[in-house]
Amino acid sequence: MSAHIGVTGLAVMGANLARNFARNGYTVALHNRSAAKTDALLENHGDEGDFVRTESLAELVDALEKPRRVLIMVKAGAPVDSVIEQLVPLLDEGDIVIDAGNSHYEDTRRREAALAEKGLHFVGIGVSGGEEGALLGPSIMPGGSRASYDSLGPMLEKISAKYDGEPCCRWVGTDGAGHFVKMVHNGIEYADMQVIGEASDLLRSAAGLEPAEQAEVFTEWNKGELSSFLIEITAEVLAHTDARTGKPFVDVVVDSAGQKGTGRWTVVSALELGSPVSGIAESVFARGLSSQRDQRALAQDILAGHEDQVQVPEGFVEDVRQALFASKLVSYAQGIDMLTAAAAEYGWDLKLDEIASLWRAGCIIRAELLDDIMKAYADEDKPANLLFAPAFATAIADAVPAWRRVVAVAVQLGIPVPVFSSSLAYYDGLRRKRLPAALTQGLRDLFGAHTYRRVDAEGTFHTLWGGDKSEVSAVDTH
Amino acid sequence: MSAHIGVTGLAVMGANLARNFARNGYTVALHNRSAAKTDALLENHGDEGDFVRTESLAELVDALEKPRRVLIMVKAGAPVDSVIEQLVPLLDEGDIVIDAGNSHYEDTRRREAALAEKGLHFVGIGVSGGEEGALLGPSIMPGGSRASYDSLGPMLEKISAKYDGEPCCRWVGTDGAGHFVKMVHNGIEYADMQVIGEASDLLRSAAGLEPAEQAEVFTEWNKGELSSFLIEITAEVLAHTDARTGKPFVDVVVDSAGQKGTGRWTVVSALELGSPVSGIAESVFARGLSSQRDQRALAQDILAGHEDQVQVPEGFVEDVRQALFASKLVSYAQGIDMLTAAAAEYGWDLKLDEIASLWRAGCIIRAELLDDIMKAYADEDKPANLLFAPAFATAIADAVPAWRRVVAVAVQLGIPVPVFSSSLAYYDGLRRKRLPAALTQGLRDLFGAHTYRRVDAEGTFHTLWGGDKSEVSAVDTH
Repeated sequence: MSAHIGVTGLAVMGANLARNFARNGYTVALHNRSAAKTDALLENHGDEGDFVRTESLAELVDALEKPRRVLIMVKAGAPVDSVIEQLVPLLDEGDIVIDAGNSHYEDTRRREAALAEKGLHFVGIGVSGGEEGALLGPSIMPGGSRASYDSLGPMLEKISAKYDGEPCCRWVGTDGAGHFVKMVHNGIEYADMQVIGEASDLLRSAAGLEPAEQAEVFTEWNKGELSSFLIEITAEVLAHTDARTGKPFVDVVVDSAGQKGTGRWTVVSALELGSPVSGIAESVFARGLSSQRDQRALAQDILAGHEDQVQVPEGFVEDVRQALFASKLVSYAQGIDMLTAAAAEYGWDLKLDEIASLWRAGCIIRAELLDDIMKAYADEDKPANLLFAPAFATAIADAVPAWRRVVAVAVQLGIPVPVFSSSLAYYDGLRRKRLPAALTQGLRDLFGAHTYRRVDAEGTFHTLWGGDKSEVSAVDTH
Repeated sequence: MSAHIGVTGLAVMGANLARNFARNGYTVALHNRSAAKTDALLENHGDEGDFVRTESLAELVDALEKPRRVLIMVKAGAPVDSVIEQLVPLLDEGDIVIDAGNSHYEDTRRREAALAEKGLHFVGIGVSGGEEGALLGPSIMPGGSRASYDSLGPMLEKISAKYDGEPCCRWVGTDGAGHFVKMVHNGIEYADMQVIGEASDLLRSAAGLEPAEQAEVFTEWNKGELSSFLIEITAEVLAHTDARTGKPFVDVVVDSAGQKGTGRWTVVSALELGSPVSGIAESVFARGLSSQRDQRALAQDILAGHEDQVQVPEGFVEDVRQALFASKLVSYAQGIDMLTAAAAEYGWDLKLDEIASLWRAGCIIRAELLDDIMKAYADEDKPANLLFAPAFATAIADAVPAWRRVVAVAVQLGIPVPVFSSSLAYYDGLRRKRLPAALTQGLRDLFGAHTYRRVDAEGTFHTLWGGDKSEVSAVDTH
């Protein structure tokens, strides 16, 4: 019996993906560096479908139908290269190697090119949905060659999450495109969680709602335009009481979150692409700041707040909801902006409507909103920025007055809302007729002869600041 | 006659450094890929000191006393490697190769290690001050081996800027430390310019001051705690009238500034170090946004402002000054925080007081403030964050009420102040007793079993969210 797919690396994510394939009728060959994990899977879940137990990569490869499909689910980085190195000599032309981990897209691009030279397909796939998603249906973002998708795609679509019956899996683009899209998904996820956190802090510190009361607010919000997995589980986490102390669960958890991996990569990549993902970056930095516990402990004693005694306006809870929604829209707009920039940079034909469609179910940022985003980019007339799509331009405009009120109140009360305020600054910056960048260019021309352009003439100019301040034409040295 | 130093790469920066050495009594051997530049320098400035004309790197090397010192001033990146490759076979053990360009510190680390294997010193030096500084006295931040500094340091100190007679040049640390410190200098410079731009925008859009009137305000500000080169030249640029149109100069300049090189590198490096340089990042992103001219043009028609009709408070100009000062302090605190993180990561013994001392004159961010920063870190009791130094904790506390007022007004009027507001969020985040990162950790534990720590017990925990919601001990998977 030849297996349809092989899975190597049977920690929770790999095991759950293997089970998901088997539960969907595929025969799955299993391999793990130590056979104990393989045996545990077979013992606990062997009755869920057809599995083939193997003890080496050679056995795994031998168990597969051709063209072979081998899915690697090991820690991103050197372990992936190590498995590839062992696998390649065992494979034949046309076989497909799949990396389902959170690999960096540049690694995926490098590996894809290297394996293509050997006649092998290397497919980096982004998988979102956590452990449960891996088992029951994740959102899947496959890259690699279009040809590989003919053979691999139907299987991935079958195990993926479904939204109204449509699989949340589509080929997104060549080489590292799948991992890139997954990375941006995670960057948006960072911002999504941070704006929820800022809303929660405001509800408590400005509106006086305890976590259990906030849970009801989030449950209510989940019925409207904010409807999403993260809002839903926020209500669940806020409602939870710590059994040991009887306190709200969120009050017994250390308030430090790490920033690494995909969140950080998103911002680094955006910087390289020149895409201003300021809100996503603030959410990454907010985690970094939260982890500086020694400095924070000192700061509480040293730094003065001088908060204003402002009256929290009527309807503040609804204001916070609107500010949260507007800030969330900006995060999505920024993430999509960097997808557009990446498509141009890396030669990917990214279909933004299809990418949005993949995120509608199965993944962490799944939300009603994504169906609307999909529709916005399915239009002939694609918006140059998500916020320009008529539905979103209207939605965010409606939220602007509340957004301004909320940020102003937070700033006066000394409640940090880095993403709320950064997103609003992005919104106001984008729509501003004149930015102070003109002054920046003037300064740079004065101290570094960096030159500038004029609003009323073609060319590049330099002012003789140290001389008679006349203007000369200059070679562009931006 | 043996020359003291050789300079290859005679564009403006290289030529000016060569002249600076010659004007300080050193004999300088000159080389450029095309001899035309060498001849132009000799024709125009040959009488300023002793120069040796050479036409090849071999001639350049032959013209030098031993140990030889060869300074490379070519475009960062591959051109530097190319010159090094040609130079190395011509050199003898103990010779010193100096890269005075804006190289990435990782490149400098790599080159230093490679040349050390061949018995050569490779010294990356950060040079700030623009073209004029290179000629008349720049701020110099040398890395490389301590031993190389014995031979090279006195020459660099002689040509450097002086602050109260002290040279703005000191060895900062091994391998890439010099270029790293210069990179952070430039990151701070980005933020410095952006906060000046935000202040200028507020003075005009909220306080109604035209550029010429603002020039007077900046001139006045330059007499106080903001006293600095950038404030001084801001007044000069704002006061300048465009001859062609009779309009304020800043109104005829295209309001787009690029983000690349050292500004971008600073943020990328901070992300890798986990240092939350949010204000510096916002200044880089503000440039990126300013460059998206097509989107901006569309946004002006599409996105609604819904600005509030707020009364600009009495004393608003002074409020803006204080907000600018506070935001500037935060940028310095963030830059210094990443220096501290880098020292630990790369094994550099960075002396923060000495680094601050180098920036007191010659460089773009030179400011009175830097003398105070130097003193803060000269103390036995070094602050864990610049803002914790008693003088700065008091100074920023004094500014907080104005800072809050200014950001609140800007937000309500729809004036984007990304660095003012981000810096305030950093300040409020740093001093906040509890951050919403606890909720983030709860969410991550729920959807990804990422685990969390408790405030009241050692260890790492996981809640069985899908089960009875009891808590179990867990292996840390942060």
